[in-house]
Amino acid sequence: MMHDTRHFAEELAELKRRLLVMGGLAEERLESAVRAMVERDRGLIGAVITGDEAINRLHVEIDDRCIKLLALRQPMAVDLRTIVAAFKINSDLERIGDLAVNVAEAAERYIAHSPVKPLIDLPRMGEMAERMLREALRAFVVNDAEAAKRVLAQDDGLDALKNQIVRELLTYMLGDPRTIEPGIDLILVSRHLERVGDHATNIAEDVIFIVEARDVRHHGADLGL
Amino acid sequence: MMHDTRHFAEELAELKRRLLVMGGLAEERLESAVRAMVERDRGLIGAVITGDEAINRLHVEIDDRCIKLLALRQPMAVDLRTIVAAFKINSDLERIGDLAVNVAEAAERYIAHSPVKPLIDLPRMGEMAERMLREALRAFVVNDAEAAKRVLAQDDGLDALKNQIVRELLTYMLGDPRTIEPGIDLILVSRHLERVGDHATNIAEDVIFIVEARDVRHHGADLGL
Repeated sequence: MMHDTRHFAEELAELKRRLLVMGGLAEERLESAVRAMVERDRGLIGAVITGDEAINRLHVEIDDRCIKLLALRQPMAVDLRTIVAAFKINSDLERIGDLAVNVAEAAERYIAHSPVKPLIDLPRMGEMAERMLREALRAFVVNDAEAAKRVLAQDDGLDALKNQIVRELLTYMLGDPRTIEPGIDLILVSRHLERVGDHATNIAEDVIFIVEARDVRHHGADLGL
Repeated sequence: MMHDTRHFAEELAELKRRLLVMGGLAEERLESAVRAMVERDRGLIGAVITGDEAINRLHVEIDDRCIKLLALRQPMAVDLRTIVAAFKINSDLERIGDLAVNVAEAAERYIAHSPVKPLIDLPRMGEMAERMLREALRAFVVNDAEAAKRVLAQDDGLDALKNQIVRELLTYMLGDPRTIEPGIDLILVSRHLERVGDHATNIAEDVIFIVEARDVRHHGADLGL
């Protein structure tokens, strides 16, 4: 097979652009879901729950693009690792889109009750998770392993904030049974946002794999983390 | 490149066998985690929490095997789809292993309290999820799309059982504040088991993709489900 290198490089760049579009959608949906809960905006909650079609279409399109690149280009080395990573990143982004739906579903139940407390820390968690996602994708686009490692280093902060939120909510729930049901949904949302951070971590690990050709998963210690 | 067909078929068969080993480990760890919670077995809980090394090693080994097959064999058509699916199934199985840890962590907190109720439905959920996983992997090994579709059809039953468990737990929690903390952990476990069913569903969808060369994700209606 003739390898048209310039054309292949353009196809890889286009693949990355499509993943960035999908990442932007996932981030936007997550941000909307958290904001809809804070502002008790029933319309926006419904829009997030029913609005996953664009991201699902991209999920299928990007997988298809990766398969075609493997079949027609038979890439090697860094190009092969990039396409394998693209499959995984595509799955992670689709899951983040699903988590936005999970947050919106919890929000829908949550606003059927009086507010447990002003929601300050949950939106902070959302922002932390969204920043991790953005930085992981940016590291992917430019193959920046150092930027990817900085994403990994943020995950503990997200987990710590989640634990603090859960402890505080328990205090409310033990003090007033009317806060039990809505409190459970806030705990679930904190866990969904923690999961978004885990997916951003996966993406960052994929970037390190592409650049350094070594699998850093399950070896946090090797990175000096 | 010379294509040694017999050798390649043997490599694919070995890849499937390794995924079956990993699936067996994931199922065993999940079963242990649920049983440890029911039997309040602190030793077994600890063993599940710290015992993810074998599955993590397999995760890295199987990904590596897939990459080498792509690079050295440059497979097409059904073989290419099988290897792409193997990457995804590998991720799903690793996540199920993580969910077993999540269940064990919830169990560890749960047994620090008096039991909320005899645990009957949660182990039932665990068995349903494990059966879905087993049947999805069996469908993968023999490329049986019909068996895969039967797995998809089981997911609604699992979700319904989870909703019933959550409703019942809420009744306990509203009636007795001492059940709030342990009740939250039971709710979390029911959601972890629901997620195991989602991963089994992913695997079943991958089997349909391998066999029928079409992407059925996000199109449940097309299957008449």
